[in-house]
Amino acid sequence: MRILGIDPGLRTTGFGVLEKHGNKLTYIASGTIKSDGDSGLPARLKTLFDGISEVTRTYAPDCAAIEKVFVNVNPQSTLLLGQARGAAICGLVTHGLPVFEYTALQLKVAVVGYGRANKEQVQEMVMRLLSLTGRPSSDAADALGMAICHANGSNTLTALTGLAPDLARKGMRVRRGRLIG
Amino acid sequence: MRILGIDPGLRTTGFGVLEKHGNKLTYIASGTIKSDGDSGLPARLKTLFDGISEVTRTYAPDCAAIEKVFVNVNPQSTLLLGQARGAAICGLVTHGLPVFEYTALQLKVAVVGYGRANKEQVQEMVMRLLSLTGRPSSDAADALGMAICHANGSNTLTALTGLAPDLARKGMRVRRGRLIG
Repeated sequence: MRILGIDPGLRTTGFGVLEKHGNKLTYIASGTIKSDGDSGLPARLKTLFDGISEVTRTYAPDCAAIEKVFVNVNPQSTLLLGQARGAAICGLVTHGLPVFEYTALQLKVAVVGYGRANKEQVQEMVMRLLSLTGRPSSDAADALGMAICHANGSNTLTALTGLAPDLARKGMRVRRGRLIG
Repeated sequence: MRILGIDPGLRTTGFGVLEKHGNKLTYIASGTIKSDGDSGLPARLKTLFDGISEVTRTYAPDCAAIEKVFVNVNPQSTLLLGQARGAAICGLVTHGLPVFEYTALQLKVAVVGYGRANKEQVQEMVMRLLSLTGRPSSDAADALGMAICHANGSNTLTALTGLAPDLARKGMRVRRGRLIG
């Protein structure tokens, strides 16, 4: 199963593609789609929609996982983020992809095994879980994290153990909210 | 010039198409696109995107005008409306349509000549301006109003006179915020 993860944003949208074979996750690709802040909103949404469409055509995923966004402190930002997310989802559903939604909390628990993990911890763990040679950008890491979150399937086990199955398999555990190798 | 007006909403999106020949506006079509509240968000956004795409293919407008939405009292509603608007804009820009944005205030001033007009007044004036035989639904009227707003071009004259050019031509005027025929 090939999974496309999306971390939506108007300025920068991260994407990450991985394959799941049994319990093994294989990195395929990741990157970001950036829209020009000097352009009007319709043009920026088109850049985002076209970018997602191109990623979908190029990597032919079987499904997509996108971050559930939350209302921002600034309502205007919430509105802009909502529009960006709407454009990204359209880029997925027009290609017939089933779209799954996960919160940032689910992502952190699935990837780091700790709901209050910071961005660096997510980047670090995505790099380890997918055996990457370099650290992905924060947007790409979040997108890959979304895909990992979906690949891990039900988060029930994770929620119970407080640790992602992949990490548990690698002999890692959480003590006082910190990941121990 | 054929103009497509859009009043975006997750549950109901209104659309209205009209033609402008010189100063004359001719009604072409209007209606609503409804998404099933029981479906998941991605499916609802797809319904909206597909509906807008179909309207665009069917009526082949030269440009589109869409309502600029504002932050809602309820941030969750703002987020949902933002996503719906993002999907609607994607349905327009993927067909290469230039998209213009107007606020509800601009619509009311352009259509009713009065920025605090209520929904019924907008419906009534859209019906008169386009010589419709029946009253359009509120969503369709707002969409047609968006198209009228764009057809009237610069709102400078309107802002100065407080009355839409079309109404002024029909011998109507505003007294104490009320429209007088």
